[in-house]
Amino acid sequence: MTFVAANETYAGSDVTRPKSLTVWFTGLSGAGKTTICKAVATELLAHGLQVELIDGDVIRNYLCKDLGFSKNDRDENIRRIAFVSQLLTRNGAIVLVSAISPYRAARDAARHSIGDFMEVHVNTPLAVCQVCDPKELYKKARAGKITGFTGIDGPYEPPLSPEITCYTDQESTRESSSKVVAAVLQYLTPTSA
Amino acid sequence: MTFVAANETYAGSDVTRPKSLTVWFTGLSGAGKTTICKAVATELLAHGLQVELIDGDVIRNYLCKDLGFSKNDRDENIRRIAFVSQLLTRNGAIVLVSAISPYRAARDAARHSIGDFMEVHVNTPLAVCQVCDPKELYKKARAGKITGFTGIDGPYEPPLSPEITCYTDQESTRESSSKVVAAVLQYLTPTSA
Repeated sequence: MTFVAANETYAGSDVTRPKSLTVWFTGLSGAGKTTICKAVATELLAHGLQVELIDGDVIRNYLCKDLGFSKNDRDENIRRIAFVSQLLTRNGAIVLVSAISPYRAARDAARHSIGDFMEVHVNTPLAVCQVCDPKELYKKARAGKITGFTGIDGPYEPPLSPEITCYTDQESTRESSSKVVAAVLQYLTPTSA
Repeated sequence: MTFVAANETYAGSDVTRPKSLTVWFTGLSGAGKTTICKAVATELLAHGLQVELIDGDVIRNYLCKDLGFSKNDRDENIRRIAFVSQLLTRNGAIVLVSAISPYRAARDAARHSIGDFMEVHVNTPLAVCQVCDPKELYKKARAGKITGFTGIDGPYEPPLSPEITCYTDQESTRESSSKVVAAVLQYLTPTSA
């Protein structure tokens, strides 16, 4: 690892960078991860904070064209997202990751490598995701046109102790995002010694 | 492209982020790119600036394990480095990229996508690189044990108009890095309207 750890403390001074973190949204396809992410981003921006949204689907286009949806490929996908999130977080951006990330170990590894990390489980029941199904992916998966689809013939391992759970079938987007924003703002507040 | 363009101007205020940029070091294997990069990083850190070093070899490990050294794979490698550099630059880091990046079009595409961009040609004669050859890569390439090696049986397309050229066979590392640092500091200085 030859990266310059440049941003924890400015060299030549005692000024420490403002604390930052990665907020990792995990949940089924169609659970509403990106919708909540965008609402959180809007609120944090209104607080004058620096935000970067990392959407799993977008990253697949830019960094992971070679990867499919096997367990190994999903793990490698998450490793790459975690790597980029780590770089951005240590440079002061509040990173909002939206990714199904079905495997617990991969998310825990991301938590470990990034350090400043908050896990948000967008806990929408599978039945609800299947009814909405805006891209008709569940329909295709049930018909066997897509294989290894999370929740149908691919596993989803929910977080055991996420910092936040959004119950999107009982909460509005605004209620979900406000919980996350409050937790982020608290995380960023300097604690007195 | 669904990224939140969050960092040009803070939402809810007219405060514009400090200007940043990517400094892209291109040159043959063994030319001294990473050595100069590290010297530049040290100097910029001493100026209290936020620096991130992106080493092509390291990125191959973290983001590009799937890629080899064909033209297509090298181009994809540079696209991924450019993508990460763009994210970091727009979040305020001064990004120092050290990558052979032998193809002019790929470097020009990186320049175009990142915007705030400075190209440094580490212009060390092939003969000098071959004499030093710390990893004995040239030796292996000449023996045919590595194929497609830049400068031996792979092309290197030098920049036509780099912002800076380091003539490492005529300059000390300090002389080379000082030129780059001066140009970076000038780039970051706000111009009066």
